[in-house]
Amino acid sequence: MLRTRLTERLKIAYPIIQAGMAGGVTTPELVAAVSNAGGLGTLGAGYMSAEQIRSAVETIRRHTDRPYAVNLFIPESYQENVEDIQAMNRTLDTFRNELGIPNSPEIAKAAEPFHEQLDAVIELKVPVFSFTFGIPDSAVMRRLKQAGIYTIGTATTVKEALALQDAGVDAVVAQGSEAGGHRGTFADKAETALIGTLALVPQVADAVSIPVIAAGGIMDGRGLAACLMLGADGVQMGTAFIACPESGAHPAYKKALEAATEEQTAITAMYSGKAARGLMTTFMKRMSSYPGNVPPYPIQNALTRDIRQAAAKANRPEYMSLWAGQGLRLVKPVPAAVVVEETVRKAVEVIRNRIPNADPS
Amino acid sequence: MLRTRLTERLKIAYPIIQAGMAGGVTTPELVAAVSNAGGLGTLGAGYMSAEQIRSAVETIRRHTDRPYAVNLFIPESYQENVEDIQAMNRTLDTFRNELGIPNSPEIAKAAEPFHEQLDAVIELKVPVFSFTFGIPDSAVMRRLKQAGIYTIGTATTVKEALALQDAGVDAVVAQGSEAGGHRGTFADKAETALIGTLALVPQVADAVSIPVIAAGGIMDGRGLAACLMLGADGVQMGTAFIACPESGAHPAYKKALEAATEEQTAITAMYSGKAARGLMTTFMKRMSSYPGNVPPYPIQNALTRDIRQAAAKANRPEYMSLWAGQGLRLVKPVPAAVVVEETVRKAVEVIRNRIPNADPS
Repeated sequence: MLRTRLTERLKIAYPIIQAGMAGGVTTPELVAAVSNAGGLGTLGAGYMSAEQIRSAVETIRRHTDRPYAVNLFIPESYQENVEDIQAMNRTLDTFRNELGIPNSPEIAKAAEPFHEQLDAVIELKVPVFSFTFGIPDSAVMRRLKQAGIYTIGTATTVKEALALQDAGVDAVVAQGSEAGGHRGTFADKAETALIGTLALVPQVADAVSIPVIAAGGIMDGRGLAACLMLGADGVQMGTAFIACPESGAHPAYKKALEAATEEQTAITAMYSGKAARGLMTTFMKRMSSYPGNVPPYPIQNALTRDIRQAAAKANRPEYMSLWAGQGLRLVKPVPAAVVVEETVRKAVEVIRNRIPNADPS
Repeated sequence: MLRTRLTERLKIAYPIIQAGMAGGVTTPELVAAVSNAGGLGTLGAGYMSAEQIRSAVETIRRHTDRPYAVNLFIPESYQENVEDIQAMNRTLDTFRNELGIPNSPEIAKAAEPFHEQLDAVIELKVPVFSFTFGIPDSAVMRRLKQAGIYTIGTATTVKEALALQDAGVDAVVAQGSEAGGHRGTFADKAETALIGTLALVPQVADAVSIPVIAAGGIMDGRGLAACLMLGADGVQMGTAFIACPESGAHPAYKKALEAATEEQTAITAMYSGKAARGLMTTFMKRMSSYPGNVPPYPIQNALTRDIRQAAAKANRPEYMSLWAGQGLRLVKPVPAAVVVEETVRKAVEVIRNRIPNADPS
């Protein structure tokens, strides 16, 4: 039951994908637990080196023989403005001083090289490759096809979904404004590409012929059933898995999520240089009045990395990035398999409860 | 079929409410057409005098013997700052000059007196009274109950939904961020109370015991079916009815809606002093850099009224308010009865297509 084109093509039991959250949440144990439960676990590998990806995939394979995905960020060209970086560092140093770490450290590299990450994905022949922030170029798409890898792109508007389909991507995530973490927006402006999931999914489903995966605010079987009604072939859930015991999220992050309510998130570019939704933190509040230019991703992400890491060590969530979607009251600290099973059970229940009767009126 | 607590209590065939859009969209003909088709039509009476409400309700009653609703704005206290008004008028005069209308006109009254509007609603014993921007005080709630009037409030967060239930309101609209027109937010900040419908509805449904009506981005049967899965007892649809022939929307407004896509709306307080979602217009773009304080609702609304009216007369939609939700690709210029009937037909279809089979897996 709950079979869709997506479950057929991915050979998974349930149309539930665990989102590829970067930054340590998606441990191999989480990925494998979701896949073993019948969903599709995803390694959020955007910040991982090729070597780290190889090692993590090896562990995933030891824990499951089911399909899984690896998620990467598609790189964009960006300009490095030394003055902007220096100005940003002067402000960030106020946080570094509070955390007792060195001022304006040298950044070795802003991001892991995409081509190395991609080589690992292709060599490993991972079953599913999902990505965000853009579209791989045609040479990369060809290599992925040749390796037999199923590809899933991320769209926040109809225009982006069509661009992904045109590029030969196999399925598209329609990421609604409720979603936690980074906006996948690449062809529109992040401020206007904040379409609610309920509005976005049917419009994307009308526009493309490839399977559509709804994302943003889906926390339980009600959300899964709703998205299937909207025309989605499956759902991607992120926030719902962060508080699981298998998740690598910091204990303070898990605790903050469990206590939070739906109106406590905001969208900020201050952590990474790209718009992302998370729990409103002291860092976000203080940075919201930053008067200068915020360096682009991945520079800003590299600039704040030491602060986020020191904050995690010092157990100070107010300076960490606490990515979260808007379904916060529904966060539960239960094993990932329970999230998958309960989502399926509840979806079946709410659909059965709503079966129209024979009355034709 | 599609029966819920809401259809039972309101004695309507289908759980579809046409939103009480103020500003001339909700003609008595539109309201009656929706009610005659089995939904609940709503007169958006926020800007109407008591006399206009009486006259409109009389016309509604001539066209239908089914239940209908009247929607009003709950007034808030506000401060009138003469300097802010003068500064705003200096900027608004640039639009007035382009439209050839007098500069900085005297405002006779900012809004119709709520107590007179309410007296009309109670004397007329309208079947359903819906409202937004707050909660009527306990004396008003008592009068409404005594008159046997069913009350529906508007919430944009769980906190607001609970406050409405505590005040004795019969049902609550959970207005998601996709919704067109004014945000109903009253207990939270409008900027943070932008929760997507898919995330908001289950959280509100978990929190209150009264019926929940989902609003925001619902344009067809897929949206209705989805909201029923989320735990809603019905839906409120606004944008889906604006292009109907019975709607009083300006022809240029209807045309703009039919041509628009999902990423072309934004939220602005520049038309009325309160946050509202509409198609991005030249007025909004130019006013977005306004450096001063925007006078509060209803003053700003009164200040821009002559501009909106002159723009309508001159057929210049770029200076009109073109309220719209995010489901824009699904707007259809069909009769209101067709919107209701097609929404029901499609909802039944998508639910039937998803009935889980006997396979227990």
